[in-house]
Amino acid sequence: MQKALGAELVGTFWLVLGGCGSAVLAAAFPGVGIGLHGVSLAFGLTVLTMAYALGPISGCHLNPAVSIGLWAGGRFPASRLLPYIVAQVIGAVAAGGVLYLIANGAPGFDVSKGFASNGYGAHSPGGYSMAAALVCEVVMTAMFLIIILGATDSRAAPGFAPIAIGLGLTLIHLISIPVTNTSVNPARSTGVAVYVGGWAVEQLWLFWLAPIAGALLGAAVWRGLRSED
Amino acid sequence: MQKALGAELVGTFWLVLGGCGSAVLAAAFPGVGIGLHGVSLAFGLTVLTMAYALGPISGCHLNPAVSIGLWAGGRFPASRLLPYIVAQVIGAVAAGGVLYLIANGAPGFDVSKGFASNGYGAHSPGGYSMAAALVCEVVMTAMFLIIILGATDSRAAPGFAPIAIGLGLTLIHLISIPVTNTSVNPARSTGVAVYVGGWAVEQLWLFWLAPIAGALLGAAVWRGLRSED
Amino acid sequence: MQKALGAELVGTFWLVLGGCGSAVLAAAFPGVGIGLHGVSLAFGLTVLTMAYALGPISGCHLNPAVSIGLWAGGRFPASRLLPYIVAQVIGAVAAGGVLYLIANGAPGFDVSKGFASNGYGAHSPGGYSMAAALVCEVVMTAMFLIIILGATDSRAAPGFAPIAIGLGLTLIHLISIPVTNTSVNPARSTGVAVYVGGWAVEQLWLFWLAPIAGALLGAAVWRGLRSED
Amino acid sequence: MQKALGAELVGTFWLVLGGCGSAVLAAAFPGVGIGLHGVSLAFGLTVLTMAYALGPISGCHLNPAVSIGLWAGGRFPASRLLPYIVAQVIGAVAAGGVLYLIANGAPGFDVSKGFASNGYGAHSPGGYSMAAALVCEVVMTAMFLIIILGATDSRAAPGFAPIAIGLGLTLIHLISIPVTNTSVNPARSTGVAVYVGGWAVEQLWLFWLAPIAGALLGAAVWRGLRSED
Repeated sequence: MQKALGAELVGTFWLVLGGCGSAVLAAAFPGVGIGLHGVSLAFGLTVLTMAYALGPISGCHLNPAVSIGLWAGGRFPASRLLPYIVAQVIGAVAAGGVLYLIANGAPGFDVSKGFASNGYGAHSPGGYSMAAALVCEVVMTAMFLIIILGATDSRAAPGFAPIAIGLGLTLIHLISIPVTNTSVNPARSTGVAVYVGGWAVEQLWLFWLAPIAGALLGAAVWRGLRSED
Repeated sequence: MQKALGAELVGTFWLVLGGCGSAVLAAAFPGVGIGLHGVSLAFGLTVLTMAYALGPISGCHLNPAVSIGLWAGGRFPASRLLPYIVAQVIGAVAAGGVLYLIANGAPGFDVSKGFASNGYGAHSPGGYSMAAALVCEVVMTAMFLIIILGATDSRAAPGFAPIAIGLGLTLIHLISIPVTNTSVNPARSTGVAVYVGGWAVEQLWLFWLAPIAGALLGAAVWRGLRSED
Repeated sequence: MQKALGAELVGTFWLVLGGCGSAVLAAAFPGVGIGLHGVSLAFGLTVLTMAYALGPISGCHLNPAVSIGLWAGGRFPASRLLPYIVAQVIGAVAAGGVLYLIANGAPGFDVSKGFASNGYGAHSPGGYSMAAALVCEVVMTAMFLIIILGATDSRAAPGFAPIAIGLGLTLIHLISIPVTNTSVNPARSTGVAVYVGGWAVEQLWLFWLAPIAGALLGAAVWRGLRSED
Repeated sequence: MQKALGAELVGTFWLVLGGCGSAVLAAAFPGVGIGLHGVSLAFGLTVLTMAYALGPISGCHLNPAVSIGLWAGGRFPASRLLPYIVAQVIGAVAAGGVLYLIANGAPGFDVSKGFASNGYGAHSPGGYSMAAALVCEVVMTAMFLIIILGATDSRAAPGFAPIAIGLGLTLIHLISIPVTNTSVNPARSTGVAVYVGGWAVEQLWLFWLAPIAGALLGAAVWRGLRSED
């Protein structure tokens, strides 16, 4: 299992470095910045690339909500949940550190501008309320799990799951960055919030609670659609 | 068949929430908005992700015009048309409701700005006439059906249809959002129009008529190209 | 062969309607336009979608330079060149007509603004000289043929050619729209130039000559790389 | 081996012409430029297209750091390193020449504006320090090698590696263009720097050193994750 934990750590490191890195370094670059569209693509491609590279080693969850949803969907043993989640959070926090190191090498960098942290209310990019943030994160994560469970099902076309899942994460970001900066992944939220502190850490609870609740909901919907009867 | 109807409902829910959601929440976000390009990608990725996840359950039509075109193409039984279409419309209207709930959580939201509804004339994004809207929706849906019928044909490369069809819908949006906000899907049009009321509902007829006419045309062209003789 | 000619006509219709249509209708839409990036994606997706849908019927060339390059690469019989090219040009001109019909439905449409025609010198989007345009179109078409011949080779991964070729056309547009508006396809150039007349028709010679020369060059390079010895 | 060297030359030619060409010609085109997002896509698509077209001939490295990383990962013989690298650099420099020829055909072209060269400190697009540039190039190349080694592993899904690797390069550019203009490829850096001279050549050392160090690091991490025990 050590290889699998190493793969989860490396993969989640890449998810946070690539996704949050593109947001911090390139989203608002003057005149030619990649915008929310480019950040959405970057998040999705971290998962697409890692799923092709590391999928055979660990299943490439890179996300505590995904591990929990796969468990709820009957695809992942409960005994592995805790070690997987620990490896994911370590990888995410390490990525936040490397991103800080790089970002800090430019004039005018200021971690308190948000560092791609997730937030609601006054800290939502578009000023969305806590209730809207909760609904959005629950529904987005639920749909993410339906995509994951469906695309990796025994009846699905083999080989294509990383495309469906990676571009599914891109889609989720295209919709919801203005609402919460998009989490659907508690490790991703934690990996940058710890460097910002203050409000970012205080609001972290929602980005653990809502994605996990959404993952359980998605797994339940999927089981309903899939059951043979 | 209940699983299939559930899959159509969930899939169409995702199509409307993802496509119209990206338009309402993220398209014009100040400075870093995703624009029509990002919205086009979002619409296509809803279909790509659902087709990989739910294709084996229901065929993943997510669109009354597609169901009718597949029937006209000899791929779908007439007896299933009505229940499929009802499930699609229910999913679409549910998505409009969830989107309303989220969008309403931000200051300044105003459903009467359009809520991603389809329209022509004064309600076309670029001020296109009813005749231009009709031609555009008919031709776009006809080509959509040719893509769908061709990419799922017995001679087509297996596994790739969701990419061809999903990115085909992206392409259709890249061309035609300025004309009608792009429908090619009566359920998608209905799912948001009912929350806007007024003109959006009054113009709905075109977004049922033109996509269905286009689907029948596309199926006829495909049968001509495909027939063995 | 009639099915194949029908498929070439329909496919080239879609290439011109989708590619030039996205340029005319959506590229510069105020505030949220898709820009050259979106147009590049649209051109590529016309080929990707048609190659999955119609590839088994006609090979899906959609381009006289491609047909000639495939003949030079030993993959296409000389006897079919002329009918294929005629079908492609008819489809392209039909698409220009439908696009005119739609575009003309908005206030302020003016075909003399260019209608996505290809040009050089004063009619190059970025003011590039005739020599730069020639070099660019020759090199781009040569690389396009190398991609096509390589991705459809007997040793290539089966099923992926439409992705490689379609996104290859996207790439070519990402590079070269500022130089010539990007042709690499004499049918595409002809399909819109006939509606503009004047300079657009006078400059057409380059967009037949350079793509065909490039296709022959690309086929020669490919034969050198591929030959078994 | 001559075919393989020819393929490396042609493929690296395309990588530099396509990637740097999109940056020089189209990134900042007034009003509708493709921005860093479009350039990122272009770089990735050069690799995706060449990997499908030329992969069976040479393995399609197109990058000295990749060749060295594949050697360190036990996938490439040391005896071929030097000829592969020479072919890659020749292809890159040829591409710089063709790009110069095209770019020079427009009014106002000035190679001293950078010509898409890589740089740090005063020559970093965002003013990033040499240390930040070093960290960034090492980490990005390390992850690139993990993607390459993983996606081409015997346990990986066959046929999808060009998508994972090409879009992986897109992702790397989405993150890091503001830092160094993104190299992760000494041939790409050399191919344009020689036309700029001065600072671009003086800073070249970092874009040989860091990508190669990163490739060795990535290969070591991969061997740790992959080893059977």
